Amino acid sequence: MNYEAIIKQVRDIPDFPKPGILFKDLTTVFKNEVSLQALSDELYHLYKDKGITKVVGIESRGFIMGAILASRLGAGFIPIRKPGKLPADTWQESFEKEYGIDTIEIHRDALSESDTILLHDDLLATGGTMIAAANLVRRFNPQKIYINFLSEIVALNGRAELPADIEVETLLKF
Amino acid sequence: MNYEAIIKQVRDIPDFPKPGILFKDLTTVFKNEVSLQALSDELYHLYKDKGITKVVGIESRGFIMGAILASRLGAGFIPIRKPGKLPADTWQESFEKEYGIDTIEIHRDALSESDTILLHDDLLATGGTMIAAANLVRRFNPQKIYINFLSEIVALNGRAELPADIEVETLLKF
Repeated sequence: MNYEAIIKQVRDIPDFPKPGILFKDLTTVFKNEVSLQALSDELYHLYKDKGITKVVGIESRGFIMGAILASRLGAGFIPIRKPGKLPADTWQESFEKEYGIDTIEIHRDALSESDTILLHDDLLATGGTMIAAANLVRRFNPQKIYINFLSEIVALNGRAELPADIEVETLLKF
Repeated sequence: MNYEAIIKQVRDIPDFPKPGILFKDLTTVFKNEVSLQALSDELYHLYKDKGITKVVGIESRGFIMGAILASRLGAGFIPIRKPGKLPADTWQESFEKEYGIDTIEIHRDALSESDTILLHDDLLATGGTMIAAANLVRRFNPQKIYINFLSEIVALNGRAELPADIEVETLLKF
């Protein structure tokens, strides 16, 4: 696939959400129906033979391609959200970010031991959120876990921090 | 379609997010791959001949089926988000809720006059958020706007508040 053409559609936003960060805005990719389809085709082909039963998307940008993937793979969709957003009993996981502690949650009945899980988020930066998400998902003792990001900021080397026993795929490399 | 079977999967959460509100939790529907597929099939058939070029989903539960619909309809996906989340220039719209003022945003370059737009959210309650969303989308002077919710709390009669010139469809009626 011609990732270069899609990478050109990504909008760089200097100093967002805070000074010194060059934000990679993917909304300009999602709004292009050809790019949206091309990326979901690519991900579908990567995972179609893995027996995925649930796609877990991380709030809220991870809901977009995560839900599309769930639908295309014939899997269920599970949200991981910020505290207080999921209405039933949850498991929580906290992790350090450069400016403090962040927490994410998953419903306690979201997954089971029989599931094969694809964890999805839009961007791999330092990897902190995904490490916490993988810890949440491991509590269910599933058959297997895969990790996928639509994009990756290679220089931040978040990939080195991710659990070594989980296959990780990213499509757009910045 | 057998909506009754799907409605039985919806989880009622008393007093969420605050006392007196019976929250309709759709995560138990999204996690069921058969229900997710059945609902997206139904929506696809409702809108497949409407010439939809963009699906606009409202943060963040509206991203889930909104993104699936965009993919299935061959349309682009556009997020409407809370203030401060969209990184480029936005239009804002504020609206009253029972406990104060809420604001939502859309990127100023998200849509154009040539678009036919499907606005999607998960639940129609009082309708305030969708009225604001419709106002945001009208600024682009699009060809046509459609409104869709996955579900509707009929007793709240939010439907009567929605713009009379826009077709509204809901699937699950509580």
